[in-house]
Formats: sequence, C-alpha cells, structure tokens
Amino acid sequence: MNAEFDIISRYFRRPAPNAVLGIGDDAALIAVPANNELAISTDALVCGTHFFVDTDPYKLGYKSLAVNLSDMAAMGATPRWVLLALTLPDDLVKHQTSWLTEFSAGFFALADEYQVALIGGDTTAGPLSVCIQIIGEVPAGKALRRRGAQIGDDIWISGHLGDAALVLNHELKKISLAEDEITQCLPALLMPAARVELGQRLIELAHSAIDISDGLLADLGHILTASEKSACIAMDKIPCSAILKKYLSMPLATECLLAGGDDYELCFTASPVNRNKVASLAEELDIHLTRIGEVCSGKGVIVKDGEGKIITLESSGYEHFSARG
Amino acid sequence: MNAEFDIISRYFRRPAPNAVLGIGDDAALIAVPANNELAISTDALVCGTHFFVDTDPYKLGYKSLAVNLSDMAAMGATPRWVLLALTLPDDLVKHQTSWLTEFSAGFFALADEYQVALIGGDTTAGPLSVCIQIIGEVPAGKALRRRGAQIGDDIWISGHLGDAALVLNHELKKISLAEDEITQCLPALLMPAARVELGQRLIELAHSAIDISDGLLADLGHILTASEKSACIAMDKIPCSAILKKYLSMPLATECLLAGGDDYELCFTASPVNRNKVASLAEELDIHLTRIGEVCSGKGVIVKDGEGKIITLESSGYEHFSARG
Repeated sequence: MNAEFDIISRYFRRPAPNAVLGIGDDAALIAVPANNELAISTDALVCGTHFFVDTDPYKLGYKSLAVNLSDMAAMGATPRWVLLALTLPDDLVKHQTSWLTEFSAGFFALADEYQVALIGGDTTAGPLSVCIQIIGEVPAGKALRRRGAQIGDDIWISGHLGDAALVLNHELKKISLAEDEITQCLPALLMPAARVELGQRLIELAHSAIDISDGLLADLGHILTASEKSACIAMDKIPCSAILKKYLSMPLATECLLAGGDDYELCFTASPVNRNKVASLAEELDIHLTRIGEVCSGKGVIVKDGEGKIITLESSGYEHFSARG
Repeated sequence: MNAEFDIISRYFRRPAPNAVLGIGDDAALIAVPANNELAISTDALVCGTHFFVDTDPYKLGYKSLAVNLSDMAAMGATPRWVLLALTLPDDLVKHQTSWLTEFSAGFFALADEYQVALIGGDTTAGPLSVCIQIIGEVPAGKALRRRGAQIGDDIWISGHLGDAALVLNHELKKISLAEDEITQCLPALLMPAARVELGQRLIELAHSAIDISDGLLADLGHILTASEKSACIAMDKIPCSAILKKYLSMPLATECLLAGGDDYELCFTASPVNRNKVASLAEELDIHLTRIGEVCSGKGVIVKDGEGKIITLESSGYEHFSARG
C-alpha cells in the first residue's frame, strides 16, 4: 500500500461539508457565495526554525493551524477551508505512528472549533515541516487591511504580549524562569489563541489591523508603512502578564514585549469615536483590549517610557535570516 | 532591513491585476465571478526528495509551478492565483543571491505564460523546499473528476510517458544513457509541460481525468478506484519516446513507462462516441493524444503485451516513503 495515501486516509480524510469536493482528487472544489471575497494566506512552520524537534505533536498540529487562523483574524475574514502540506522524515512515518495521531488530533481540535474543513494537501518525505494554506470569506470590500490607519486613530492590542518570546528565551537559556512561570507562559508559545471572532467584529470598527507574529514594533510598523503614518506608543500601557512585568528591568524582557513575536494577538487602529464600542466588544468577547498609543503623521514608531522619555531598542522584530536563521 | 521582506519585495512582488489585493498584507483578497467554482490544490517540492540540491534554480522555479498547474489541468480548471511558501537555507540567502534571481525568473516565466498571479506566500529559514498553492476557476459543476469513468470509455494519454523517470534513473546510476539521450530526456524531468489548455477543453469531452505524477498505473488506478471500475491497457500502445523504446527490453525501462511518475501528462477517459472530437482536439492543440485501452467493470488494471499476454510488474507507482523516502 502506498504510504502517502495511507497517511491521508488514516489521519486526515474527513467529510468537508462546506466544500463541493474535499480530499481525494487532483484539487478540491469550493463554491463562493456572491458578495463575498476570499482571503487567502499561507504560513509554514519548519522544524529547527519555528519549533523544536521534540515539540509535542498535538500542540504543533494546533499551533500550525492557529497561526494561519490568525492571518484570517487580521483580515476580519471567517476561516473556511485549509490545505495541509506535510513534509515528514521517513523515520517518523515508520517508527512514530503516534506522532501523526497526535498531530492530526491537535490540528482537528482547532479546525472543529472554527468549523474549518481540511480539503486538500500534500504529503512528502523530507525534513519535518508543516505548510498550511487557509482560505476565508469576507464581505466584499470589507476586509481589514494594513493600509487604513488614520491620523488620530487609537492603537489597540488584544490580550497581552511577550510571554511566548519570554518562555522561548528560557528554552534557549538566555533567561531563567521558575517552574510555575514556565507553566504559565508555555501555552502562549505552544497553543496561541487566534482572535478570529475579534477580527470579524472589527470589520465595522477598525481602520487597519495586523496580527502580531513578528513582534509589536515590526507589525505595527507594517501598518504604519502601508498607511504612510507614524505612531507614538506608551511602554507602560503595552499589556503584559504579571510574569513578564517582573522581568521588565531586563532589556531581554523589554525586547520580548516589544519585538518578541509569536504573539498572534491583533494590533488594530480605530477612531477615538469608537472607543466605547471597542470597550463593549472587549467585554462581550471577554478579551482584553488595551489602548497603547496613537497614530500620527510622519514615519516610524516612537516608544515612550512612563516619564515620556523615548526608549531605544536593539532589535525591531523577528528576523528569519539572522536571529535564528 | 528584514531579510524576509527584502526577499519578497526584491524577487517576488509584482502587480496582481486579477486580485483585489496581492502580496503585502496578512492575506490576499480575490473576487470570484458568479457561476464559477474554485479548484484548489498544493504541491511541495522538497530538496533531496523531489530534486537534487544542485538543480538549476530557473528550472526548479519553473517546475514548481508546472506541477501545480498540472493539478489544475487535471480538473479542467483555469489557473488564476498562486501562493509560494519558500523555505531557504541561510547560506543560500546570504551567499547565493543569483539562486533567487534565477528561481523567480523560472517561476514567473511560466506564471506569465498562463497569466497566473502570485498573490502571497511565506519565506522562512530551513532546509530547501518549495510549497505552492494554486487556485483556479472552473464553471460550476463542470470540473473533471477522477470518479466519472464509465464502462466502455476509451482511456487516453497526452504526450508520451517515461522520459522523466528514465533520465532520473540515469542520474541515480541505475541505467546509463548516451549524452544526446540525456539532453533529449532532461526537459521532461526538469521542465515538464502542464496540459492546461487540454484540461480546459476536456471538460466537454471527458468523463474523468488525472495528471500522471505518480506513474501511469498508480494514477489510472486512482481513476478506477474512484469510479469503481477496472481497465485493460495495451503495453505497445502506451506512447513513449524513441529513446525509451530503445531500452524497453530492460525491466527498468518498462517500469519507467508504466510506473515512473513525474510525467505530468493527462490520463483521461471519454466515451468512444467522442473519438473524432478528441482526435480533432489533439490536432488543434498540437498535442499527441493516444488511446491506450478501455474501462471495464471490476477492479484493477490489466496490462497486456503485443501478443495479448498479461504483464506483471514489481512496482505500481511512486512511493514516497519507501522508494526514495
């Protein structure tokens, strides 16, 4: 029996009620309702770059989808369909069958939560990596883009930032966390929440949005570049956990907060007239939404400390081909 | 400057006139005309599994897209949009900048030929691999599927089979070809043609179709399994080059023809009443289309030699996790 097809049918083939045709042909087929546009993106997680070789496969399956859902959230799109291109070492397929069982369980746990259907993919032999393509629907002309920020907009952040980078730095032995701190920070790194409902609701409230995957400064920077604006943010307003706050006297922790990456929270800008609506939405969705600054004219991001002094940083975001490349 | 974004803007960012929004946001946006369905698939090419590390990057860029176009061809879909997830070794990014120039040139040469727009992707550090997602349009309800084969259907093959596998076996030192034979066979391996126009036209003529990526027997087998039918094909009708024909007394060459894979020709079934129309189409498109057998009731594929004897084979197709895994 062909192992490639066996892997698909054993671990990944499921009914795809929202597709015309799911797994099992040369391509999947979907029908798109009129008046909707499709949002499409892809994110790859590569062993040794994005995750350690001994990462729990359930959590890896979950996170692989979560980071893709996060791109849909940042567009205000409703995720509907995914394709999964898995590259698997021979040894893993032959001797670690539980890996695929757990990986697929983690993947489908999140897929089921959002009623996202796996409609296709590819399975090949090679160094471990997971490449997902995601497709979502958004009402025509309504997608949240990076380029819409306007002067005077509030800058908002969902959840809190920096825990994923903090615990990663612990694993890289650049900082030493206590056992309970590790336990509390690890979920942010291994099973991040995608802010899908938030993104959908922001369509009516926000001028621009992005998900924070490369670090706050880098990703807010993308909004500002696309919008041809600048921003001023207050360091002490940036939401962080009590654990990260404890370490903030260390430059590394500050960098985790401002430039750590892997947060998958949303950063968005909205008119101050929507402040109450954003606050109500936070309450309704039970998500912390924090106002950290303001969009201004000009270029770049200025970060000020509690006394209004400008803070200078060494790194401005995750850099694939130097930091960990 | 962030190397990831530099790679995208330098080598891959181009206008995408057929998209609402192309590269540069959290996701691309496309609008789908009413009455069309979307065909979506993904194919990854992994260094060491699908290509050698020293493969000409121009040809790799070309082939990466060609194998994905081939999936669209097999559905009768018109390819429109692609996403490209590139995993690149650090060394390649830092010291072999011509690699990306050539890879992107090969990729866009084919993309331009089919007016396919690159609308998104991902660039990460890691072992070299190319993962492409392709999206095409097909009139609703008209896509060519594997499951439509009917008893009595003719089985047709486009072009000729086996040259890619033959020259690969030469490179693997399992067979020794002459210089001019290598030169003539290499394009089949490195720059396969995707039968896009043929697929589009077969919508009105064929009952089922597949592209031959895993070898004739395996891929015809997928049509038969999906259609719950069997087939009888004539070995001496299977189209092959004069070079491959020369070696057909060797079992390895027979396997290249029947089970070699990497052909990217179309295998389709059509009613005998359409025989003249298929012949006219072959002439119009200037593509060889050869009738190699017939769909029957039952299960499996029977291959007969010139004297009507049944041929038995060792391998039935490309097998990722044993042959080359």
